[in-house]
Amino acid sequence: MKEVKIYSPATVANIVCGFDVLGMCLAEPCDVMHVKLLAEKKVVINNINNHQLPTDASQNTAGASILAMLDDINDEIGFEISIEKNIKPGSGIGSSAASAAGAVVAANHLLGNKFGNEDLVRYAMFGEKVASGVKHADNIAPCIYGGITLIRSIFPLDIVSIPAPQLYVTVVHPQIEVRTSDARQILRKEVLLKDAIRQWGNIAGLVAGFIKNDYELISRSLEDVIIEPVRSMLIPGFDEVKLKCKEAGALGGGISGSGPSIFMLSKNEATARSVEAVMINIYNKIELTYHTYVTTINDHGVKIINE
Amino acid sequence: MKEVKIYSPATVANIVCGFDVLGMCLAEPCDVMHVKLLAEKKVVINNINNHQLPTDASQNTAGASILAMLDDINDEIGFEISIEKNIKPGSGIGSSAASAAGAVVAANHLLGNKFGNEDLVRYAMFGEKVASGVKHADNIAPCIYGGITLIRSIFPLDIVSIPAPQLYVTVVHPQIEVRTSDARQILRKEVLLKDAIRQWGNIAGLVAGFIKNDYELISRSLEDVIIEPVRSMLIPGFDEVKLKCKEAGALGGGISGSGPSIFMLSKNEATARSVEAVMINIYNKIELTYHTYVTTINDHGVKIINE
Repeated sequence: MKEVKIYSPATVANIVCGFDVLGMCLAEPCDVMHVKLLAEKKVVINNINNHQLPTDASQNTAGASILAMLDDINDEIGFEISIEKNIKPGSGIGSSAASAAGAVVAANHLLGNKFGNEDLVRYAMFGEKVASGVKHADNIAPCIYGGITLIRSIFPLDIVSIPAPQLYVTVVHPQIEVRTSDARQILRKEVLLKDAIRQWGNIAGLVAGFIKNDYELISRSLEDVIIEPVRSMLIPGFDEVKLKCKEAGALGGGISGSGPSIFMLSKNEATARSVEAVMINIYNKIELTYHTYVTTINDHGVKIINE
Repeated sequence: MKEVKIYSPATVANIVCGFDVLGMCLAEPCDVMHVKLLAEKKVVINNINNHQLPTDASQNTAGASILAMLDDINDEIGFEISIEKNIKPGSGIGSSAASAAGAVVAANHLLGNKFGNEDLVRYAMFGEKVASGVKHADNIAPCIYGGITLIRSIFPLDIVSIPAPQLYVTVVHPQIEVRTSDARQILRKEVLLKDAIRQWGNIAGLVAGFIKNDYELISRSLEDVIIEPVRSMLIPGFDEVKLKCKEAGALGGGISGSGPSIFMLSKNEATARSVEAVMINIYNKIELTYHTYVTTINDHGVKIINE
């Protein structure tokens, strides 16, 4: 039977001033998934390591995405999906998106690339809906396309790849729970026009900085005057992490997704390592367990390993 | 005595989703200015054609800008400024900015380029303050830098040149008065977060489209869900102009500055001319006098002609 192994990477959504529209694919960590084509219309989920993820396909992000895809296929086929989860659920670095995107990319590969990337994003959004109640693409799009992606619009879907210079990403995941639904609920439904203007000046600067390889402009534009001041209150140590990481040379950064992970961008690996040391010091001091990653931007997204 | 002649161009501020941050320099129309260096600390304003512009330097946009510059110079010098105004005041295509920017660029030239472009923007903003009560740079920056400029921030000043592909600009100026102060007053101080997100997705797309020479992306991103729905009510014919110009092939467009001028971007001159014909038809039909321009983006800004 046809089978494929893939690596499905972590992603950072809500890149600072790019709330709900800008996401970035990371080289690490990655989930490892094995997907097998079946001759029967069913979806089987196997969780290799124990994260208490649902095995009912319709309640599982990978499963729901594949079910949406199968809905568009008339053949008597199905998939068996085995997930080795290395991206901890609830960490804010796109764990659910990795399952959803990984599953549809793998299945599509086994089907001879019947579907295009936009179709895959649409299927994987069914998985995000299971995970968070909302169809959003700001983790899925970078996970599938790689690199940095702008989701200009969901309906109609409009995904734009944003080229960027070499960047190192340091992530710290303090081991506390921030529910996506809580993180969304504390946001105000209205914002000041003057703040919105500052935010869209910043995202315009950030996109220009990425495409023009202008590190200084990227750094100046990594400012969020709307979401971060509210959500950062849910993350112990946030203000100190941000301040000291910038003192250590980071270009800037902020909350990854809806938290609790915090990410920082740096121009080179040495700085990214110093930034990691700063994060470790702070969370050791406040006695919170944590995990850190020093990685780069992943330009290819989900990677097919072998059949 | 040293003297210089310059052309100071019209500009389009508030490029659709880029309210308050994105401006664009036009090849036409241009004010013509003669600026003469004087051996006495005074500023003389001569209005060549009659637009009832103040001749008291401190109340004139060119004069106030030059006074701000002279404040930073210890020498006993002054300037005589003669303005032939071809950009009608109140048209919404940067008439006051052309006077202010033109004056400081000309004066700086006569001083051997003592000041940098950022300094010139700061001086010219004093002129904008006289004209509209607010220091803003979204006409001045493109007028001085040329091309399309992002004003990411005013304090501190952060101006970013945004490269763009060849674009034709059609402008219609319906001869009605829209006061900048009125246009600002009708805006709500708060906006919905979901609208703000859509707007910053669009400006990110527009900037990416400009830099990547992606006309389709530029076209899709030329959408303003916050300012235009409110301000367009002040401009008779706006909705019809926008709809029919897009049907005629325009990439998109919107209100120029705070109106009443409307601008449309096109990929080639033939389309820009068809767009002009559409505008002419509509304003003939509703019996409003108007003026139209078909022009291009001006990459150099204020132009020094001779001494």
